[in-house]
Amino acid sequence: MKRVGILLFAAIMIAMPRARATERGSKAAIRAMLDKQIAAWNRGDLDTFMETYWNSPKTAYVGANGIFRGWQGVLDRYKRTYPDRKAMGKTTFSDLEITMLAPDAAVILGHWHLERADGQLGGVFSLVVRKFPEGWRIILDHTSRVDNPAKQ
Amino acid sequence: MKRVGILLFAAIMIAMPRARATERGSKAAIRAMLDKQIAAWNRGDLDTFMETYWNSPKTAYVGANGIFRGWQGVLDRYKRTYPDRKAMGKTTFSDLEITMLAPDAAVILGHWHLERADGQLGGVFSLVVRKFPEGWRIILDHTSRVDNPAKQ
Repeated sequence: MKRVGILLFAAIMIAMPRARATERGSKAAIRAMLDKQIAAWNRGDLDTFMETYWNSPKTAYVGANGIFRGWQGVLDRYKRTYPDRKAMGKTTFSDLEITMLAPDAAVILGHWHLERADGQLGGVFSLVVRKFPEGWRIILDHTSRVDNPAKQ
Repeated sequence: MKRVGILLFAAIMIAMPRARATERGSKAAIRAMLDKQIAAWNRGDLDTFMETYWNSPKTAYVGANGIFRGWQGVLDRYKRTYPDRKAMGKTTFSDLEITMLAPDAAVILGHWHLERADGQLGGVFSLVVRKFPEGWRIILDHTSRVDNPAKQ
């Protein structure tokens, strides 16, 4: 039994740093995906921007107008809401928090800011992302506008 | 090699229905958790209602006023926003969609409706839930009010 205990201890000592390294790698890959999304948006490249969403009819965008279904539904909504570069403005994210739910699933909580010639908008988002063979993709984007953030 | 193939086939045939049964069981447990939440709300029992949230400072509620942190922060927000039975009204959920992300993690998309003496409210929510030793709990609640749902 002593040998089993030693082996178990050794296995845990080897596995734990690896699990942490894997988590670090996943979080870095998710951040890179979001960086790509933001950069694409800010140069008006909606095609590359949309590559960060899972290309599936199950993908969903949830916002102040309800639920938009499917990759195509998400794209249509973006085109309607932001018809040109002026409407798209310049966006930034802040306070990103990534929580791993599984090696291939995570949820991201963050703040978004949009600067346009006619003023500023902002709010919060929660993104559920999954790792597919093609990389990390957003499967659910829930975005809210916040006009008067609560002081906590 | 033939025997390995047969064994592999047998293993898959045994494992697949089990995985499906586990998923069905998890979804049933998640639905039961939401049923308990709704029932508690509708009898004005905020203590039992709050049992469905993970009792952790990491738990978050995201709404039109930003991000509220921790189990206590979520409770404080509910108490402020719904100070009495009249304000709590009667709530129902509809169109619940549960997507399993791992055996111990899922995301729920749904509509909420609140009926009060002074009128009706409604919107959408996405809940990230995890399975803890004590059962399924909400770790992230993102709720939006929708006044004019998009027709799709």
